[in-house]
Amino acid sequence: MIKVGVVGGTGYTGVELLRLLALHPGVQLSVITSRSEAGSKVADLFPNLRGYVDLEFSAPDLSVLGACELVFFATPNGIAMEMAGELLDRGVKLIDLAADFRLQDPQLWQQWYGMEHACPDRLATAVYGLPEMNREAIAGAQLVANPGCYPTAVQLGFLPLLEAGCIDASTLIADCKSGVSGAGRTASIGTLLAEASESFKAYAVPGHRHLPEIRQGLERVTGAAVGLTFVPHLTPMIRGIHATLYAQLEDPGVDLQALLEERYRQEPFVDVLPAGSHPETRTVKGANHCRIAVHRAPDSATVVVLSVIDNLVKGAAGQAIQNMNIMFGFDERDGLHAIGLIP
Amino acid sequence: MIKVGVVGGTGYTGVELLRLLALHPGVQLSVITSRSEAGSKVADLFPNLRGYVDLEFSAPDLSVLGACELVFFATPNGIAMEMAGELLDRGVKLIDLAADFRLQDPQLWQQWYGMEHACPDRLATAVYGLPEMNREAIAGAQLVANPGCYPTAVQLGFLPLLEAGCIDASTLIADCKSGVSGAGRTASIGTLLAEASESFKAYAVPGHRHLPEIRQGLERVTGAAVGLTFVPHLTPMIRGIHATLYAQLEDPGVDLQALLEERYRQEPFVDVLPAGSHPETRTVKGANHCRIAVHRAPDSATVVVLSVIDNLVKGAAGQAIQNMNIMFGFDERDGLHAIGLIP
Amino acid sequence: MIKVGVVGGTGYTGVELLRLLALHPGVQLSVITSRSEAGSKVADLFPNLRGYVDLEFSAPDLSVLGACELVFFATPNGIAMEMAGELLDRGVKLIDLAADFRLQDPQLWQQWYGMEHACPDRLATAVYGLPEMNREAIAGAQLVANPGCYPTAVQLGFLPLLEAGCIDASTLIADCKSGVSGAGRTASIGTLLAEASESFKAYAVPGHRHLPEIRQGLERVTGAAVGLTFVPHLTPMIRGIHATLYAQLEDPGVDLQALLEERYRQEPFVDVLPAGSHPETRTVKGANHCRIAVHRAPDSATVVVLSVIDNLVKGAAGQAIQNMNIMFGFDERDGLHAIGLIP
Amino acid sequence: MIKVGVVGGTGYTGVELLRLLALHPGVQLSVITSRSEAGSKVADLFPNLRGYVDLEFSAPDLSVLGACELVFFATPNGIAMEMAGELLDRGVKLIDLAADFRLQDPQLWQQWYGMEHACPDRLATAVYGLPEMNREAIAGAQLVANPGCYPTAVQLGFLPLLEAGCIDASTLIADCKSGVSGAGRTASIGTLLAEASESFKAYAVPGHRHLPEIRQGLERVTGAAVGLTFVPHLTPMIRGIHATLYAQLEDPGVDLQALLEERYRQEPFVDVLPAGSHPETRTVKGANHCRIAVHRAPDSATVVVLSVIDNLVKGAAGQAIQNMNIMFGFDERDGLHAIGLIP
Repeated sequence: MIKVGVVGGTGYTGVELLRLLALHPGVQLSVITSRSEAGSKVADLFPNLRGYVDLEFSAPDLSVLGACELVFFATPNGIAMEMAGELLDRGVKLIDLAADFRLQDPQLWQQWYGMEHACPDRLATAVYGLPEMNREAIAGAQLVANPGCYPTAVQLGFLPLLEAGCIDASTLIADCKSGVSGAGRTASIGTLLAEASESFKAYAVPGHRHLPEIRQGLERVTGAAVGLTFVPHLTPMIRGIHATLYAQLEDPGVDLQALLEERYRQEPFVDVLPAGSHPETRTVKGANHCRIAVHRAPDSATVVVLSVIDNLVKGAAGQAIQNMNIMFGFDERDGLHAIGLIP
Repeated sequence: MIKVGVVGGTGYTGVELLRLLALHPGVQLSVITSRSEAGSKVADLFPNLRGYVDLEFSAPDLSVLGACELVFFATPNGIAMEMAGELLDRGVKLIDLAADFRLQDPQLWQQWYGMEHACPDRLATAVYGLPEMNREAIAGAQLVANPGCYPTAVQLGFLPLLEAGCIDASTLIADCKSGVSGAGRTASIGTLLAEASESFKAYAVPGHRHLPEIRQGLERVTGAAVGLTFVPHLTPMIRGIHATLYAQLEDPGVDLQALLEERYRQEPFVDVLPAGSHPETRTVKGANHCRIAVHRAPDSATVVVLSVIDNLVKGAAGQAIQNMNIMFGFDERDGLHAIGLIP
Repeated sequence: MIKVGVVGGTGYTGVELLRLLALHPGVQLSVITSRSEAGSKVADLFPNLRGYVDLEFSAPDLSVLGACELVFFATPNGIAMEMAGELLDRGVKLIDLAADFRLQDPQLWQQWYGMEHACPDRLATAVYGLPEMNREAIAGAQLVANPGCYPTAVQLGFLPLLEAGCIDASTLIADCKSGVSGAGRTASIGTLLAEASESFKAYAVPGHRHLPEIRQGLERVTGAAVGLTFVPHLTPMIRGIHATLYAQLEDPGVDLQALLEERYRQEPFVDVLPAGSHPETRTVKGANHCRIAVHRAPDSATVVVLSVIDNLVKGAAGQAIQNMNIMFGFDERDGLHAIGLIP
Repeated sequence: MIKVGVVGGTGYTGVELLRLLALHPGVQLSVITSRSEAGSKVADLFPNLRGYVDLEFSAPDLSVLGACELVFFATPNGIAMEMAGELLDRGVKLIDLAADFRLQDPQLWQQWYGMEHACPDRLATAVYGLPEMNREAIAGAQLVANPGCYPTAVQLGFLPLLEAGCIDASTLIADCKSGVSGAGRTASIGTLLAEASESFKAYAVPGHRHLPEIRQGLERVTGAAVGLTFVPHLTPMIRGIHATLYAQLEDPGVDLQALLEERYRQEPFVDVLPAGSHPETRTVKGANHCRIAVHRAPDSATVVVLSVIDNLVKGAAGQAIQNMNIMFGFDERDGLHAIGLIP
């Protein structure tokens, strides 16, 4: 049993983390912090946790957090980088579910996130927590940057093709659709049910923060610049991301289905569907799986990859647990056995 | 490990049962029957089960089912009563998730279900599987009639008040709202997303099959005739039942909150919320809990009880697992640890 | 053509009013005020109005509003009562879509709305704008209090029965379900899609502001105290109210179907469905109709009335237009010809 | 007033056509046919039409239909081509909302629709009813093939760019998302609320019937082969199509915003949004508009066009009315004034 703390437990990634940690066999949940809710019971805010989580929210306190073996940050961008240094110095392991340690280049971070990076010296030691790409480094990491939701779905879809070098890396397109929980548990008009239900729209076409993150990850594979058009869309559902990926095939002879199946054969959470399939996001609702299918567009050299995840699980809290399992030598599936909720 | 069979695994209670059984520590899932899908893989129909359930659907075969220690019927009404006799004679235990054994009176059954009962002699030995009312009898039963979804939510709400004798049992009202999964996985126009979404309606006001079932359960408590108006409504969501129950208080001095809390203190799956609460169905989405709150209407002798369940879990498959756990001496919570999915 | 102003055009009743007024043959929309959006184009905030409404929001200005023949208040509670006096003195007619003039008793208003009434002397001249109850008074009114959404659905359902004196007025129950647009276009966590979708809950059981309004309306009919239990619920859809009304029948011989049909035969916007029907809210989506059905509960003296409206149309902006039509001698249907949107 | 008939009034395009025709100032609705519903009142099937449409469904009868000046076919594919010849010979004008006359090449039709074309000789006279492309021909046509929903949204988005010759026509991508009403009012499991809600998926990636229709339309502009990848997706909402279109810009200097604005300046139903906009499908819910925005993807030569319509209005029944207005010399906006329903 390891002692675990969660900083910022009032958002959707926070409550999802608590839901998963509460049933994890190797974890003792020690502290959950929230400045705004300090003193109130976690289960009063999230009644689904009644009977499972008995803690109260407390104000963040470095000495209490410092007594944990692992601290998750489920905070807005810019918080973890302020607190990370001291906790790392005390030997605590950290998994940041926000973006603070995702980009290796602090200039790039500042450009996209609009603030100076508070601990650029730690960026070099931060490990990007996509296990299917980085498992060994994660196992030895003290600081893990948990990937964004879109970047998880998109990278898992493109990786095998880029590794095989069979597509043109300069004209990639990622047309992504997300449920509204991706916008967070924040009062805003745009994500009210009366606004976002029965409607569909693209957003951030001129530039989204996940674009540099995805590009960085893909360029790690190609070793060269990647050209990527990324268009996110808001979908009238709570959970789920569907990435529809387009690439131009350069090697027409490649067996795409075999390529993907081979690449992910050993992966516990990536499921390549049979040829001709169309994954539905609901098959991973509440589950840590990524389901993928690959197609050739008719009469064309275009490869179409369909990749679905639950943005709050494999796209956030579940992947964080998976990283924790790797970092602490647990079975990678521990606490992540849930099956997607159908219907 | 007990060997378990499922007859009729293609509906929503079927797939929910499989989802729960696949992770139950004491169960070996041996056979899943479906005439229409015989020969195809269960996980092809329900891709969320990929990696968890490797079985194929097979045509129902009494010798195969007879080798199980427990068989669940997740079939349409009228199937279990045809097959039950032979399986019971072979010593198999049965839990019927349909209505075949819910009503003790075969005449009443015929009146509401429109067919003659095929094995009226078994009705006397069938135990009504509402653990909070009938735990001891369930423990010793060979044949359990799993309650309907509305009857579960309604009976759990009215039981403490009727047991305490503090309300008028002749003017009860149950205004119930159900998600559309209650209508089953059946091609029909009325429950298409384009029909049932963005709309709300009552149905079956002239008479619904769950009315006699609820009345029978409540009259077991009162020992006298119960007057009940039951109005079900279709709600544009997948899962969840919300029962809003109205009764006239006869003993104005009773502490309703204490009464409910006391009644359910020992129950693992009934959670009485603090005074003043309004339970949300999403707090039990995917979970086996019933959450209940009790109110006095302002300036009035009307008691208002709010009772929520997931119709597919506590209202069907989860309650069936709970009954199995009781019948076989498992911990009553085994396989039912899931926390409601928020958001 | 009359010159019309709208105070507070940024909420849902505001945009709905604009949508209807933009196509009304007898109206020239002159001014739309909003402090927060002053200077921006209405159609920038509500792109559905592009090509139909060319105005900008402006800060409220009594001299501009005073030049209108009619001003609608689509403001939060407490605004209209501050501005009404001066506009009335200038001879402008007013329709308030908020609650400021709904309750005749300023003490009762203060008790439920938590502020002192700013112009209690005007209450006596305010006419409650439910045309089916009050058409003649509306025709001659200078100040109309447009009814609340729940009160419209509930009163239209109970009215014929109370007028006929065939039910017990002391034990009425109104179990009401509303889409989330009833909560307004306001940033709040509780009505986010990720919170309110795929869930159902009651709220305000200890007391809702529409309770005294409904009671006042029904007591106008009975001339005596009415006992009413009112429980509102939040439903995962945008538009629509479904009121399920329960009453104890005192005259068992009454032909309920005939009673309702007769009562509403001349009403352009109340549609009594054939016996045995269950109205769906979607049949009135975007339309000014109220659809009603009446049932006897089986084996019981309970009358069940089902009444549906679109909360933003017959429950707010459409009814306001209907009142305007009556006040200015237009055809009562002008601008209100829209047919419910199915699917 | 022209006499109009509708063949096949029980589907979603049928009821939408009735909703629009019922309020059209120049139309007398004479006959609505349906074999399955013959003899029942239209308003019993679609209660939103109560008070607006008093007709009964009747079995199709060529002599009755032949007495109309215009007949709409809102039938499944393959019906109109059987009945068209006789009606055309009688001088009746026809608008087919199905696919029977959309493809000029009967071989191509047979390949995609799986049946031999019943009247290939009429194909040459059929006019493809996209007014923004074909207005003059429509005005003189006796037989109009109303475009598919996806083809409308996609062609309106690509047209200005292809006409200007500024993009590479060989690598077009159309990533399209549709509400479920596009699947029709047909009992099927896949579009049940419990299946299609809270989920998102692509479908028909290996080939969709709208692909050759779109290609034919675009090639009419380019005069050469067009390379198009078309991926449709099912979105959990009732109405709306969002097309996200990708093309490689060949002329980097072109002012895309000006190009689109100029192209559609005179069009009553195509609304080019200001630069930087993201159209929402709800802004056209129930309305005949297409709203379009154009973007340059960051750091890239990719043009992104966002195009939204209501699949049942501009994508079906509304466009059919627009074609009728053109064919009969009505104002093109007649019967199509409805404003999108927000919220």
